[in-house]
Amino acid sequence: MNIALAQINVHVGNFAANLAKMLEYTQRAKAQGADIVVFPELATVGYPPRDFLEFDDFIDKAEEVILELAKAADGIAIIVGSVSRNPVVEGKDLYNSAYFLANQRVQKVQHKTLLPTYDIFDEYRYFEPAHEWGVVRYRDKTIAMVVCEDSWNVGNENPLYKINPMDEMMVHQPDLIINLSASPFAYNHAANRIEVMQANCRRYNLPLYYANHVGAQTEVLFDGGSLVLHADGTVIDELPYFKEALRIYNTEEVAQKELVSGEEAKHKMTLIHDAIVMGIQNYFGKLGFKKAILGLSGGIDSALVAVLAARALGPDNVRCILMPSQHSSDHSVNDARALAENLGTQYDIVPIESIYNSYMDVLKPHFWAKPEGLAEENLQARARGMLLMAFSNKFGHILLNTSNKSEMAVGYGTLYGDMCGGLSVIGDVYKTECFELARYINKDGEVIPENIITKPPSAELKPDQFDSDSLPPYDQLDAVLYQYIEQHQSPQDIIALGFDEALVKRTLRLVNINEFKRYQTAPVLRVSKKSFGMGRRMPIVAKYLN
Amino acid sequence: MNIALAQINVHVGNFAANLAKMLEYTQRAKAQGADIVVFPELATVGYPPRDFLEFDDFIDKAEEVILELAKAADGIAIIVGSVSRNPVVEGKDLYNSAYFLANQRVQKVQHKTLLPTYDIFDEYRYFEPAHEWGVVRYRDKTIAMVVCEDSWNVGNENPLYKINPMDEMMVHQPDLIINLSASPFAYNHAANRIEVMQANCRRYNLPLYYANHVGAQTEVLFDGGSLVLHADGTVIDELPYFKEALRIYNTEEVAQKELVSGEEAKHKMTLIHDAIVMGIQNYFGKLGFKKAILGLSGGIDSALVAVLAARALGPDNVRCILMPSQHSSDHSVNDARALAENLGTQYDIVPIESIYNSYMDVLKPHFWAKPEGLAEENLQARARGMLLMAFSNKFGHILLNTSNKSEMAVGYGTLYGDMCGGLSVIGDVYKTECFELARYINKDGEVIPENIITKPPSAELKPDQFDSDSLPPYDQLDAVLYQYIEQHQSPQDIIALGFDEALVKRTLRLVNINEFKRYQTAPVLRVSKKSFGMGRRMPIVAKYLN
Repeated sequence: MNIALAQINVHVGNFAANLAKMLEYTQRAKAQGADIVVFPELATVGYPPRDFLEFDDFIDKAEEVILELAKAADGIAIIVGSVSRNPVVEGKDLYNSAYFLANQRVQKVQHKTLLPTYDIFDEYRYFEPAHEWGVVRYRDKTIAMVVCEDSWNVGNENPLYKINPMDEMMVHQPDLIINLSASPFAYNHAANRIEVMQANCRRYNLPLYYANHVGAQTEVLFDGGSLVLHADGTVIDELPYFKEALRIYNTEEVAQKELVSGEEAKHKMTLIHDAIVMGIQNYFGKLGFKKAILGLSGGIDSALVAVLAARALGPDNVRCILMPSQHSSDHSVNDARALAENLGTQYDIVPIESIYNSYMDVLKPHFWAKPEGLAEENLQARARGMLLMAFSNKFGHILLNTSNKSEMAVGYGTLYGDMCGGLSVIGDVYKTECFELARYINKDGEVIPENIITKPPSAELKPDQFDSDSLPPYDQLDAVLYQYIEQHQSPQDIIALGFDEALVKRTLRLVNINEFKRYQTAPVLRVSKKSFGMGRRMPIVAKYLN
Repeated sequence: MNIALAQINVHVGNFAANLAKMLEYTQRAKAQGADIVVFPELATVGYPPRDFLEFDDFIDKAEEVILELAKAADGIAIIVGSVSRNPVVEGKDLYNSAYFLANQRVQKVQHKTLLPTYDIFDEYRYFEPAHEWGVVRYRDKTIAMVVCEDSWNVGNENPLYKINPMDEMMVHQPDLIINLSASPFAYNHAANRIEVMQANCRRYNLPLYYANHVGAQTEVLFDGGSLVLHADGTVIDELPYFKEALRIYNTEEVAQKELVSGEEAKHKMTLIHDAIVMGIQNYFGKLGFKKAILGLSGGIDSALVAVLAARALGPDNVRCILMPSQHSSDHSVNDARALAENLGTQYDIVPIESIYNSYMDVLKPHFWAKPEGLAEENLQARARGMLLMAFSNKFGHILLNTSNKSEMAVGYGTLYGDMCGGLSVIGDVYKTECFELARYINKDGEVIPENIITKPPSAELKPDQFDSDSLPPYDQLDAVLYQYIEQHQSPQDIIALGFDEALVKRTLRLVNINEFKRYQTAPVLRVSKKSFGMGRRMPIVAKYLN
């Protein structure tokens, strides 16, 4: 039997486009001799569809896509993820299901059992878990269909669920497992994914065909990396990362381990770079926008965003605005200009001093009795944000946010100022990782001027200001943030790792009291296991570690 | 037996304060002869604690509160909601539990079975459902303890869950039901709550004692309204709304229907008014802030926010900034000034024309070839937002956002302009409801100048601009929005109700394409069943009805 894995990039709610894409892949798979083509989880509606699932009309449209796809299941079978309605009145109204389409009909619908409800996942918000388990018999093979998380409770030291659906399906003696997934990217996720799928092969002594999404749905990035594994866990093939793909596998060849391919090398910075570029591309492409704008300060964060945007959209579609103030150093403007010239992007210089002064004139009667301070610093950042938004409104650019994860964590940024933007490009990249990413970008020649990478970070909102005046050194800060944000460690645990107590307590307090700022920022392209945004849900008005 | 219901306002994560409050209520209940005092769901940690539940240290602190409370369970029993750890490795690591404390020890822990995971609720994100059900025997009574949602699957036409925990507990022949709740306010929720609890009494033929939270946790408002019901469903007592309370009931008197109290009248605008006032008070009080600032335009939205803030915080703690532009009418300034004088709040007049001109001077070399339009309108709104934030930063005020639900829905507002603010006060109040609320506020005499209520709404960002130039009449718009947002109706369904097809399609499209703006706005005090924010989770980069 020949099984085609279709690793596709769909668009949430864009039923016509998703159907057209699946029809095209089905025809291609059929032309290449596939017996079955496998599409990812919820491929009809895109992942995650979120509360659109609460609209009957949305579910109707997904059902229409399934009926249209079924017509194309002629001489080829189609396995595809979609929603289905729960006919039983008790329980949630929907299932997250794997459909088996053949002979132009829906032959089998197997519902997902394990519903991830953590981090970015909200599946139990919408879906009833499966209470029955079956298999599909097709062309002399017995196929067990599972959906994503259904395979993730195996080989887990602290299993989240009490049952494993494959345990139930084994009574039907399947010949192979097909897993439809929507398993999001994180820079350290791929290795884990392979291990977990290998654990499934070994536990059930079955080969596994795994079709994953690729592409970005707002902040959630899917890397693809679909898999074919031998029953002993050997990786027969891994599909490319960050690209659509269609590949066909003969089950006998898989059984005999013909054509075992090496896995792709997965370097952290390569993955983060490619993931972000895809994230920008898809954000713009799926919204129907082409052009980005950003403020280029001469610092490393905006430099990275400029490079990544130019790579994602083409330099002609990126406009950089340099907005020097009285506190900007000459090198800032020169470095920013050099970068824009390296990239070949348009740039404009728009000084903010006159705008700042006009604010101060108007505010003087109210502010004169108080010393200068944060309000004046923030005014500069906000004047820049407003100018960028004016360009955005005038010319139809989307403003890219340039905040990094470290400053978002501790609130070292100005709400409605440098925290403006439609998409946070590097908001899941710590400052220390920003330096690594810059080095990675420069690995084959200078793209980002060296001075941007080596000079001490500064917000340049007052004379001789450096980040190190207000914040701990970034290597320490980032290490503490990582322990708290990704690892959920307590202050005591982090101090026990050797960090200074005052530093730890101050850092955790800053993270917690700045939730109100993060609440109002753009979606953040998620590249780690714990990004700010929909995967990290914190109360604002809380009193814990602060 | 005497049962005390303690309807308290706790603070998420503020373990020391929550413990102190519960100890105080316990002593008061004991002094008044109570055998048992009942606190609400998760009263130790506050509700909703959100992802703080993922921190071991947070759970440790909740357990310490339980141990401290147990020491006070001396001569009185305490029923209180808290988290507990799941000792079984399979399944989620936590339970949402009702604790029974007596004789200075934890006597019984009954876990919650039905875990709401919809709208603002994320309980399955954190908790394992109960798999075992028991009761408590105390002073000759057998008590069934259930937690909030555990009682909400009864009398439901489309039950969300397959089981009812009380069905399981009935084998132990309990004498009464005690329900610990964190059931949030919506203006039409209270009647529903009484009906559902009555259905429980009737189904099990048992009296029910129901202790609810009161107070605001950021955007989520709890109205209290704790209940005592006779086994036949008669309401024996309903505790006050929007206030802490402690009341003691004798079970024999309840059985004999002595002292049956009338229910409070629940007028929609009274409820919304009181809920918002409490929401503002608690937002400021729990964050440790006192002073609010807002932009007063002369329109009805900011007028409402000024009144509500003055009532919540006192007029001395509210500062209104009037920021006229060249497009502001005289009546706007006069109306705003008259309102501030009626309220007795400080107000300042800060014209924005010179600031606007300074932007236009700087932008002229870039913008000259394009006609004036949205960019220039937004600049005015943003200049105002920046001025307000400058005051906020300088004097330590929190900026109140003044957007209403209708404009948030269709994106008729400027991101980083009038959409600024730390808290959205009326973001869950449709424009037509704003008029009702203004009338309610003026019912005993003019607080809001009549002209503010009667003049046609205008953003005043260009000459002779009225909302009706860009938007359908608010009565039609709000009716369509209500059908889509609250009722989840499809375009076809709404058109079938008699609304113009073009109006419906345009409105729904506007709602969907403006998700990016709502993503970046402040938390919205939730007064309806479906508010923007954590209870309504939509993708940004989707293609559905747009």
